[in-house]
Amino acid sequence: MKEAVIAHLRENRDQYVEELKDFLKLPSISADSAHHEDVRETAVWLKAALTSAGMDKVEVIETDKHPLVYAEWLRAGEEAETILIYGHYDVQPVDPLDLWETPPFEPSIRDGKLYARGASDDKGQTLMHIKAVQAMLEVEGKLPFNVKFLIEGEEEIGSPSLDAFVESEKEKLAADVLIISDTPMLSAGRPAICTGLRGIAALQIDVRGTKGDLHSGLYGGAVQNALHALVQLLASFRDEQGRIQVAGFYDGIEALPEAEKDSLAALGSGDEEMKEETGVRELFGEAGYTSRERTWTRPTLELNGVYGGFQGEGVKTVIPATAHAKLTCRLVPGQDPTDIFEKIEAHIAAHTPPGVTITTERHDSGKPFAAPVTDRAFQAAAQAYADVYNTEVAYTRMGGSIPVVETFDAALGVPIVLMGFGLPSENFHAPNEHFHLDNFDKGLETIVAFWAHYAQKG
Amino acid sequence: MKEAVIAHLRENRDQYVEELKDFLKLPSISADSAHHEDVRETAVWLKAALTSAGMDKVEVIETDKHPLVYAEWLRAGEEAETILIYGHYDVQPVDPLDLWETPPFEPSIRDGKLYARGASDDKGQTLMHIKAVQAMLEVEGKLPFNVKFLIEGEEEIGSPSLDAFVESEKEKLAADVLIISDTPMLSAGRPAICTGLRGIAALQIDVRGTKGDLHSGLYGGAVQNALHALVQLLASFRDEQGRIQVAGFYDGIEALPEAEKDSLAALGSGDEEMKEETGVRELFGEAGYTSRERTWTRPTLELNGVYGGFQGEGVKTVIPATAHAKLTCRLVPGQDPTDIFEKIEAHIAAHTPPGVTITTERHDSGKPFAAPVTDRAFQAAAQAYADVYNTEVAYTRMGGSIPVVETFDAALGVPIVLMGFGLPSENFHAPNEHFHLDNFDKGLETIVAFWAHYAQKG
Repeated sequence: MKEAVIAHLRENRDQYVEELKDFLKLPSISADSAHHEDVRETAVWLKAALTSAGMDKVEVIETDKHPLVYAEWLRAGEEAETILIYGHYDVQPVDPLDLWETPPFEPSIRDGKLYARGASDDKGQTLMHIKAVQAMLEVEGKLPFNVKFLIEGEEEIGSPSLDAFVESEKEKLAADVLIISDTPMLSAGRPAICTGLRGIAALQIDVRGTKGDLHSGLYGGAVQNALHALVQLLASFRDEQGRIQVAGFYDGIEALPEAEKDSLAALGSGDEEMKEETGVRELFGEAGYTSRERTWTRPTLELNGVYGGFQGEGVKTVIPATAHAKLTCRLVPGQDPTDIFEKIEAHIAAHTPPGVTITTERHDSGKPFAAPVTDRAFQAAAQAYADVYNTEVAYTRMGGSIPVVETFDAALGVPIVLMGFGLPSENFHAPNEHFHLDNFDKGLETIVAFWAHYAQKG
Repeated sequence: MKEAVIAHLRENRDQYVEELKDFLKLPSISADSAHHEDVRETAVWLKAALTSAGMDKVEVIETDKHPLVYAEWLRAGEEAETILIYGHYDVQPVDPLDLWETPPFEPSIRDGKLYARGASDDKGQTLMHIKAVQAMLEVEGKLPFNVKFLIEGEEEIGSPSLDAFVESEKEKLAADVLIISDTPMLSAGRPAICTGLRGIAALQIDVRGTKGDLHSGLYGGAVQNALHALVQLLASFRDEQGRIQVAGFYDGIEALPEAEKDSLAALGSGDEEMKEETGVRELFGEAGYTSRERTWTRPTLELNGVYGGFQGEGVKTVIPATAHAKLTCRLVPGQDPTDIFEKIEAHIAAHTPPGVTITTERHDSGKPFAAPVTDRAFQAAAQAYADVYNTEVAYTRMGGSIPVVETFDAALGVPIVLMGFGLPSENFHAPNEHFHLDNFDKGLETIVAFWAHYAQKG
């Protein structure tokens, strides 16, 4: 059966790429309220795609913000196992727009890569699962397992609606394994199964000084400047070597299991790749760790945005009344986002410079995740990758956060296989995001191979 | 002679106010290219006013942008002293327009105040000198001194043409004293002679870290974040008490003359006024100085703008590739802007965090100014104020910068008497600018009294 399905995939590949382009043209930026209707339109587009794929039931499910799309095909029967596939159809904002070589919502293929916001994260990878299932149904008329899709529109804003939905719809989502393709491969040609994700805690900091902006000549020197107070506070979060100075920040972090230490060491430090990908001459981070350890196994506190005062051309001699910062922490097993919020807020209270008031607002939060790779689903995935890529899969962790993974883990208690097809260099969240179509093709085949291996062992 | 002239002024006062209204109706906004022709029309209006006043020669002098107006009456003879009067006929932009109670170019008198853009800064004060000279000529048929007027149309955009003009026309502008009325009185009823202005040095700082913006999950912890590097650098500029940490920053600052220390002390700390005007509960600044000393006599380093990364609604998990800051220093006598630029650049070089490159760009600069009040012109001005206001004049400094004053000082080397008639509350540069007509009346008499006292002592 696998060979016929793969032949079918190859025959229809150009059509799939065209469909992906249509999917990518929809500007489903979940963070931007101006795109609220575009997000909804994208959910409706997905409903049609899932219906065409042969799903028996497809629903657009309302939430407080952006809808979920749910689909199922349960004709394998009650005795058969069920595969749940999660993906997301929302995308990151696109600024700075002037750095895009082609517009983010006008998909463009150059040099075997499809450029568009969401190409890799996560529309491309989500559509691959839909197309793989569609191909199996078109060729065989049936599937060896029941399948359920849950595709959300809020992943890039921290999945605010998903927790409650998963918690209250455990029955509907009941499955034997959860597959997610939203993590990168180790490198070109080297597939990876991700066994751990960092958690996240995002905070906005707002500083207020004077009642209005002031003339820096007439008032300068006699009142606190909100920007000076802010940079002083922000500088206090880390020491000069990048070690986080928030009291208790590193408390309770779990040591890496010995086996994972070894497999991680076998992958190398990642230092040269890090320099290459980021374009820096000099790496920077917590002493005593490699780049791979720093990004996969250690927590962070990163400024994502700082702003206040005049930003135009030239000079404006102003003392700004307010100043602002956005930061996110990445958390590792043993840390909890609520606890981290409290510790940062305490640090801010203890380090507020004189002459200003500081307020904070908590945004996204998600717990870290670590998967024991003992279930047979992991072996099926590893074999599928080996079939198609002709190499051993790497067991990796990821520095990013998919908070919903921890939610699924807690609510459903099933193995979660994070098998991604993107490359680390594909500019997720940045200008010129793209997806290597080579991995689109190989990924479709890998998914079909996974179903076959999982079926053989079932 | 003084009494006859003052009687003449009182007789013609309503006519002068009508002329000032005509002057104020012309929207001479130098910063706005849409008003280019209006600025020129205002110069032509001034030429007519100076001709009517009895000047022998009046010129509209072209520059690269807005014309200068020059006028002279030299019939006191080569042996007599010459008074040079500087003013400006251009005005600030008027937005936000909706905050004006009456339109900015429809002069309106309410409660003894004349409301219009430029009423106080500086059309009102400039016209007073013209009318005072006109009255003296009408009553006496002659003046005790030669007089020259130089009235520019670019003061509100930093006087880009004036430096070169003053430098190349030293002969034409040769005088024994320069009078400028463009600084505020201390308060209602309390006239002031401004004896010092702070200089300025403005710098842009640009930090580059990674080659592009990065995902803070995938890369966070292993590379320097441009924003962290920037806040660390910026925090290093001042200590927690606001003392500037740039090596040598305070070197060479001239001590305040004892006499000025006493007169400054007599004016009070200014602390309560500072709190009231800025809306802060707590003042902040260099230890050991009052608010008045901090803003008038001490240098500053103030952040005017800081920006980098994501500034939109919500969260974007990005490590920004670049981060930026704008800062201005205010300088006091003994400091030089070029030297300060070099010291700050050296500080930046010495405090650049690892993993980033930092570049700087110098913007506006202007030297500080301090007038030794020993020349008899200052005594004449003080006596004139005392005659009319029945109070002792305050010797003040100003925290702001009027770079042209330092230009005149360097090029002409004559005493510069900054004798203003505006009040600090008159909304220069803001909506509802106005001028107290009481000070228009008293100011006319003060100017005539100044000429009389200066003549007695000559």
